[in-house]
Amino acid sequence: MNDVKKVVLAFSGGLDTSVILKWLQTTYQCEVVTFTADLGQGEELEPARSKAQLMGVRQIFIDDLREEFVRDFVFPMMRANALYEGLYLLGTSIARPLIAKRQIEIAREVGADAVSHGATGKGNDQVRFELGYYALNPDIKIIAPWREWDLTSREALIAFAEAHQIPIPRDKRGESPFSTDANILHTSSEGKVLEDPWEEVPDYVYSRTVNPEDAPDTPEYITLDFERGDAVALNGEGHSPATLLAKLNDLGRAHGIGRLDLVENRFVGMKSRGMYETPGGTILHIAHRGIESITLDRGAAHLKDELMPRYAELIYNGFWFAPEREMLQAAIDHSQAKVTGTVRLKLYKGQASVVGRKSPHSLYSPRIVTFEDDAGAYDQRDAKGFIRLNALRLRLLGQRDA
Amino acid sequence: MNDVKKVVLAFSGGLDTSVILKWLQTTYQCEVVTFTADLGQGEELEPARSKAQLMGVRQIFIDDLREEFVRDFVFPMMRANALYEGLYLLGTSIARPLIAKRQIEIAREVGADAVSHGATGKGNDQVRFELGYYALNPDIKIIAPWREWDLTSREALIAFAEAHQIPIPRDKRGESPFSTDANILHTSSEGKVLEDPWEEVPDYVYSRTVNPEDAPDTPEYITLDFERGDAVALNGEGHSPATLLAKLNDLGRAHGIGRLDLVENRFVGMKSRGMYETPGGTILHIAHRGIESITLDRGAAHLKDELMPRYAELIYNGFWFAPEREMLQAAIDHSQAKVTGTVRLKLYKGQASVVGRKSPHSLYSPRIVTFEDDAGAYDQRDAKGFIRLNALRLRLLGQRDA
Amino acid sequence: MNDVKKVVLAFSGGLDTSVILKWLQTTYQCEVVTFTADLGQGEELEPARSKAQLMGVRQIFIDDLREEFVRDFVFPMMRANALYEGLYLLGTSIARPLIAKRQIEIAREVGADAVSHGATGKGNDQVRFELGYYALNPDIKIIAPWREWDLTSREALIAFAEAHQIPIPRDKRGESPFSTDANILHTSSEGKVLEDPWEEVPDYVYSRTVNPEDAPDTPEYITLDFERGDAVALNGEGHSPATLLAKLNDLGRAHGIGRLDLVENRFVGMKSRGMYETPGGTILHIAHRGIESITLDRGAAHLKDELMPRYAELIYNGFWFAPEREMLQAAIDHSQAKVTGTVRLKLYKGQASVVGRKSPHSLYSPRIVTFEDDAGAYDQRDAKGFIRLNALRLRLLGQRDA
Amino acid sequence: MNDVKKVVLAFSGGLDTSVILKWLQTTYQCEVVTFTADLGQGEELEPARSKAQLMGVRQIFIDDLREEFVRDFVFPMMRANALYEGLYLLGTSIARPLIAKRQIEIAREVGADAVSHGATGKGNDQVRFELGYYALNPDIKIIAPWREWDLTSREALIAFAEAHQIPIPRDKRGESPFSTDANILHTSSEGKVLEDPWEEVPDYVYSRTVNPEDAPDTPEYITLDFERGDAVALNGEGHSPATLLAKLNDLGRAHGIGRLDLVENRFVGMKSRGMYETPGGTILHIAHRGIESITLDRGAAHLKDELMPRYAELIYNGFWFAPEREMLQAAIDHSQAKVTGTVRLKLYKGQASVVGRKSPHSLYSPRIVTFEDDAGAYDQRDAKGFIRLNALRLRLLGQRDA
Repeated sequence: MNDVKKVVLAFSGGLDTSVILKWLQTTYQCEVVTFTADLGQGEELEPARSKAQLMGVRQIFIDDLREEFVRDFVFPMMRANALYEGLYLLGTSIARPLIAKRQIEIAREVGADAVSHGATGKGNDQVRFELGYYALNPDIKIIAPWREWDLTSREALIAFAEAHQIPIPRDKRGESPFSTDANILHTSSEGKVLEDPWEEVPDYVYSRTVNPEDAPDTPEYITLDFERGDAVALNGEGHSPATLLAKLNDLGRAHGIGRLDLVENRFVGMKSRGMYETPGGTILHIAHRGIESITLDRGAAHLKDELMPRYAELIYNGFWFAPEREMLQAAIDHSQAKVTGTVRLKLYKGQASVVGRKSPHSLYSPRIVTFEDDAGAYDQRDAKGFIRLNALRLRLLGQRDA
Repeated sequence: MNDVKKVVLAFSGGLDTSVILKWLQTTYQCEVVTFTADLGQGEELEPARSKAQLMGVRQIFIDDLREEFVRDFVFPMMRANALYEGLYLLGTSIARPLIAKRQIEIAREVGADAVSHGATGKGNDQVRFELGYYALNPDIKIIAPWREWDLTSREALIAFAEAHQIPIPRDKRGESPFSTDANILHTSSEGKVLEDPWEEVPDYVYSRTVNPEDAPDTPEYITLDFERGDAVALNGEGHSPATLLAKLNDLGRAHGIGRLDLVENRFVGMKSRGMYETPGGTILHIAHRGIESITLDRGAAHLKDELMPRYAELIYNGFWFAPEREMLQAAIDHSQAKVTGTVRLKLYKGQASVVGRKSPHSLYSPRIVTFEDDAGAYDQRDAKGFIRLNALRLRLLGQRDA
Repeated sequence: MNDVKKVVLAFSGGLDTSVILKWLQTTYQCEVVTFTADLGQGEELEPARSKAQLMGVRQIFIDDLREEFVRDFVFPMMRANALYEGLYLLGTSIARPLIAKRQIEIAREVGADAVSHGATGKGNDQVRFELGYYALNPDIKIIAPWREWDLTSREALIAFAEAHQIPIPRDKRGESPFSTDANILHTSSEGKVLEDPWEEVPDYVYSRTVNPEDAPDTPEYITLDFERGDAVALNGEGHSPATLLAKLNDLGRAHGIGRLDLVENRFVGMKSRGMYETPGGTILHIAHRGIESITLDRGAAHLKDELMPRYAELIYNGFWFAPEREMLQAAIDHSQAKVTGTVRLKLYKGQASVVGRKSPHSLYSPRIVTFEDDAGAYDQRDAKGFIRLNALRLRLLGQRDA
Repeated sequence: MNDVKKVVLAFSGGLDTSVILKWLQTTYQCEVVTFTADLGQGEELEPARSKAQLMGVRQIFIDDLREEFVRDFVFPMMRANALYEGLYLLGTSIARPLIAKRQIEIAREVGADAVSHGATGKGNDQVRFELGYYALNPDIKIIAPWREWDLTSREALIAFAEAHQIPIPRDKRGESPFSTDANILHTSSEGKVLEDPWEEVPDYVYSRTVNPEDAPDTPEYITLDFERGDAVALNGEGHSPATLLAKLNDLGRAHGIGRLDLVENRFVGMKSRGMYETPGGTILHIAHRGIESITLDRGAAHLKDELMPRYAELIYNGFWFAPEREMLQAAIDHSQAKVTGTVRLKLYKGQASVVGRKSPHSLYSPRIVTFEDDAGAYDQRDAKGFIRLNALRLRLLGQRDA
């Protein structure tokens, strides 16, 4: 246990990671460096600094990673229209590789030989963190306290905190009725009151969106501009990636958009039930499909659709830094060169619907598709040959099997 | 042109197929047999009989295919969670193979050597009909009037009708502002007023669903029971496939569920803009994913997700009777043996959301997933080895590329 | 350690599993039941019985599984044309699930609560065995001595054997220059002298095939008959699955067919270098593609080709009993209904080549493909429309991007 | 027919394209520009010039495209390990897009409004040419004489040639017993004597390889060096792409390597039987897999294997210039950054076998894979957790379905 000299801990400032901080100090007798990331989770980060200082931490990193997160992680994923198991927008999954990356960078900067995180031994996040760590520094030591220590009950945790004079927020004395993770893309909730998948998610679990029933009775229309597959402007006004997502979050929140109640398959082999709120991301996802629908060729679009489940699975399972994810990204990004234009959406009571799309690079040809006379743009007689040769193998089969 | 003796025409009784009927008689000097299918499109079929009789047709087939349609076509497709281009529930596509199948059966019964349909030369339906015809009777002759005749304008069509004393409904004198197709699964609309993809679909185009803004202000909760992947009961009451879908349509209509405004890629190579209303089918689709989420193993579920786009493309393109569609169906059906249980849904203002799911075959294990003490059901230390071996290749990569 | 009462050991009778037997008895103080399978590895099995008896084993199972192995495991896999990483015929991988299945059956019969195997902690076989065990009996206890004991060197193993009076074959005193696994489908060799992938495999490693240079200077021609995807007759003479494969092995051996020197990726994350000899299986694989080439529709054939790498990976990784493997098998088997006919092959100096194929269900149509006048079987003008509609989207792209 | 002003003809100088040249001049009354490409087919090209001059052609293009062909078409395809239907190295398919590209370039240079080729209406090549033409110039006119004219028999063709004083080579008077296509990558043969797939290919059909039975009785060993996925040196000596392929062709020819007798599925819907000789390409393909085996990560390698059939199908069907082919190429090329190193091969009597591979970027780790003590590089206990979590879903299934 003495072979760790300096460890970089992903530190939120909350009770759990405070206990971990102290536990690392006492168990490994090593220096702990804390790293707190602002990914848009909507919490004050400065308290994390003072807590770390109180516990004697000398090197404290607090980084605003919101723009990097949206630009280099969320947006590339959105280009893929990624949905895990058909529905989940991967809000937690996509944040982990960035945290891992920054932790490894800090470890290099401060000369640490280990990293640590607060994810439990049953979840996906431990996998995502640690695959990221190992990919970026194969020789790093990893400490996963939840898999190692004996603080296996809430009581034990509280007792440890008390014994080490770690302040315990009043509301953490009792057990939280569910557990959450949040960043600028989403908030996830799971555990306890959500554990029976037959029971509807109680209203108090939602924090990022109003109940659709309480949303405005009048629809709101917006436009989103895309360039090369990325959203760049809302209602005609340009924004940075994180700012734009934040504004979409406000819209999504107001209209109750992006709630998802899901039973999903974890990489570690079990099913879990989670509730996700992805207000802005849901709008973005729908709008991106909208702009692709007029700018992307069928061959490219269908290939993307076929590759997407694999791509989403890789992100969910923590393989962001794996070569196969990068290969798929190369293919996806190649397809986005002309995914530029404007989508008009209607937001109403929990739904975002594309109602219009236009683009300087549109492949939609009214001249060809029209029911009216097309002045020879399309020769209907071509269809006969097209069908007959597509049918030829079926006819040969039919003749054989008759 | 004289080599056709008897032709079976897919006959709706409307103006277009009435003109086709007459055109076939005069152009090919052949006997025409009409076939009119009740697929739940919600129109009286008896008028088709009298119209055909008026035009001298002696063999008239009017078949109620609703149960066969839902049981043998819609439900197998629903087992696959099929969505074309991520969004379209394939309501038109899935009806074509059944019509083609029945037409070929009738051709066999009445000794006809040809079949005919009223689909145009720019669309997908011609392909779907004709691939079906050829697969089921490789030697059948196919007459596609829209690709052959010179009635290329509305005026020419009307003139032909008048010249041959075909009654013209008052509202068909002028041009319809859009074109529709309907069956128990959906109604599609396209053309004319819908041809500009930047313009929102006008309200009068919708016919199967109320505007979500006019839907009830109070959510409605329902339960759907599934057996082996197929829906069998609504709110605890068992129904035949078509009856159940009809009841879901009523619910979907009332709550404004299942509207879709889409620019899609046709098999013949162009993009088109369509509007779809699939009220009951949308509820069914969402519910099916819900019951699968607790009864399907991850390996099966992910394989299904990866195969789905191909499966949907095959149906969209008209390859229902192709061996590769049947192979995929065999795989999909194999996965459904335990997809049995109950889903609870909330219907509200255009949305159907799963709020609960339960099953005697549930794979969801609260004992294992719990945040609480699991009494040894899951050993968190296993996660370390799991991660380390999943990471091994990434570490070797990292060591090489450092 | 005392919680195991009775364990079924996969027992070859060799030194390693003899040591394991004794180690289980002494370490777990439990009854050991031995199971020895004849999978056509070409070794006497009766010595395994006497060895087991000598060590006090009371329940000894020796089963001839050759026909079951070929019929229910090798042949279904051959229907898929399975090749791992493009080249490997999966000879070891496919044997493991059968052994696991039988071991679990025996455990049930004899009331054992545990199973054990002799696979090491670095290889794929431990995974294949144990995934099989767990799939077939989720509550079984598994003992993997190589991962548990402290006999980590050859010396320690020999010392343990000597201390427990286990007879040590003279040639096992020193270290074997490589390690092998054999069954009726193949022999694999790996380790030690093969560990440098730049060094050519020494001649003495090969045991199942003559060196192609020593093979006959005259080609030999054979025919193989297939029924529904499975080989049933050689040179017109019918045989059971295992007998037929044995005869193909003789032919392959004589002509030096089926050698493969491969660096492959193990499921546990490392690369390893192996040498495989699959004489009869190689002929079978090539012949099966040959009969498919005239009896399988293009759609089915291409779908099979796209699914194959996944299918092969599942078998390699040990997921034979997983639902997704069964789904793929259902799709594959569905395609084989008409894969019936005869393939003629030439065997010569390491190669098996298809030189002829015929079938009552042939889809090859000389009437259509001929360069000669085809009497209207194919209308070349159809090609124009076929090409023009396939080109349409490319033309629209070209117009946009010009 | 008068609307074509100037046409660029892909002109070999042989009888067929000479007849086409004259037929275009007389039928379309237009100027014909000839284009003859040296793709390494091994024929004198200057005779094509004099023939064209004799028929009054004023603009004659004869281009040596060998390096461009191998560098920009063959090599990218080799990076994918592309095999159509598991076996065919796509030698004809890959040449067509380059010819189409150059023809369109010439049309632009000379102000031609049309292009023409000599491919028949039953084959794949018409599709490949014309999809290329349309992709690169959506408005080009295409003349496909074989689909248009009435010269449907050999006699009619000869008579036309005689009537127009086109010299007829003596050996073209009678019908050729089969038809061929050749370039530096391969020679294909099909038709006539090859039309019965049960009959072995007669020896006189082969032109690029010696019969393996006549090949040297002694193996030859060679080394191939790769850089970023492309072959760059033979036996340590660097060569340009085309030169290197030519040298491999010599080696392949001498050892009888690369013969393939195949029944394949054409894009136009029929099966055909062809014989291919790809001497150097076969060696290259095998060697490329060899160097990938030690330099490519498993994730990348398996993704490549899964994408390959689709990629090969796209090339076979003529979609080289389609976005989806380019997307796949982007993914494939991304994977090749470290595919650098040396492969050693043994060439003997029709076979090329990898016997060694080494690389400065090798991912093969003898330290980890070794049977010997690995000094802690790999912790065998990790395997237990790895297996247990991979098994978890199978255990849950087993518990449910017991």
